[in-house]
Amino acid sequence: MSVAAIANMGRMARWKPNARGRLEQAALELFRERGYARTTVEEIAARAGLTERTFFRYFPDKREVLFWGSGALQKTIVDAIAGAPEPAAPLDAVAAGLEATASVLQRGREYARTRQALIADNAELRERELIKLRSLATAIADALRRRGIPEPAASLAAEAGIAILKVAYERWIGDNKPRSLSHHLRESLDELKALTASTSTAIGRSHPARVTRRRRQARA
Amino acid sequence: MSVAAIANMGRMARWKPNARGRLEQAALELFRERGYARTTVEEIAARAGLTERTFFRYFPDKREVLFWGSGALQKTIVDAIAGAPEPAAPLDAVAAGLEATASVLQRGREYARTRQALIADNAELRERELIKLRSLATAIADALRRRGIPEPAASLAAEAGIAILKVAYERWIGDNKPRSLSHHLRESLDELKALTASTSTAIGRSHPARVTRRRRQARA
Repeated sequence: MSVAAIANMGRMARWKPNARGRLEQAALELFRERGYARTTVEEIAARAGLTERTFFRYFPDKREVLFWGSGALQKTIVDAIAGAPEPAAPLDAVAAGLEATASVLQRGREYARTRQALIADNAELRERELIKLRSLATAIADALRRRGIPEPAASLAAEAGIAILKVAYERWIGDNKPRSLSHHLRESLDELKALTASTSTAIGRSHPARVTRRRRQARA
Repeated sequence: MSVAAIANMGRMARWKPNARGRLEQAALELFRERGYARTTVEEIAARAGLTERTFFRYFPDKREVLFWGSGALQKTIVDAIAGAPEPAAPLDAVAAGLEATASVLQRGREYARTRQALIADNAELRERELIKLRSLATAIADALRRRGIPEPAASLAAEAGIAILKVAYERWIGDNKPRSLSHHLRESLDELKALTASTSTAIGRSHPARVTRRRRQARA
């Protein structure tokens, strides 16, 4: 998320030379050295050569150092959905939104790895991440409804988009090969298509004897 | 969630006559009367004619009054996935899990509505709900991997299952007709199938001009 951050740093230059970037850098160093929970805002500011007051000019709290780019990310996705060519299937519009993210996020896999490890390690950070993702799902569903997509298609396409993004992002971070986030997004969407195509039944009609054959067809 | 609760109340009988049920009932009354945030554990216990100590024997904190059934719910889903006939497509196994939930949850739509309104109104409760859903997604993916389903199919099928459950549950709660949760689960799965089937493209191929180049890259 903070990769969007890096792109935005220029904007702050007139205010304080790259204060946000310095604070973020200092915070990441300290989080790695002594853990997120044991690092204080005072220490972050000191390491960056700035004051606590300056810290709070850029971040409402310590958690937001790891999440402040998510607003820009959400806007990127929503704008790309709004701008997707008409007509587009709901999930194609969502795919266009996710693709726009990829071009922002894929610049910083090392940062993404560090950040994700910090989040995985701390309950407060996991909560904040879940809330940001929930906000993103709501924003995507809203963007789809503005395109005239009815319910439940809008909500389901939004949830499917979050599912694809989550899985692709995790696989991208864990990937040892230099494949882009775009690659993993594409793969996750294809996998989701194969998964839904291979269901032999709807819920309540589960007699999956025919499944294997269908699955083979779907993957062919 | 607490509908599973109601089913379990009998078990408590020898311990304290329906203490959990009385505490839950008292809590819901108070939450409705004065709001979740302004209700104390002391007041809940008093209304139920029990002590605070008894409250904490049943619930680790005030939030859990609204979530204590989620462990049983998760177990129901995981067991149903484990017990789905072999072979089953991943999403069919998930569907079997969700269907098992439906038979538990659909007994209490009024309760579900009240509970959901309380959660929507309070940030702490929304956080707890997101964490429970995350735990459920992880448990579903684990159950699928134990069936031999590889990644990323297991994670994606789990996320798709959560998407279906969330949308179906919301629609069931908001439905004015007496249609079951099963009905809405079926409808959401069908809708998700339609959504993925209707994508004309995978991610990165949504702009016709870029199609040929991307496809070539993807196949390389």
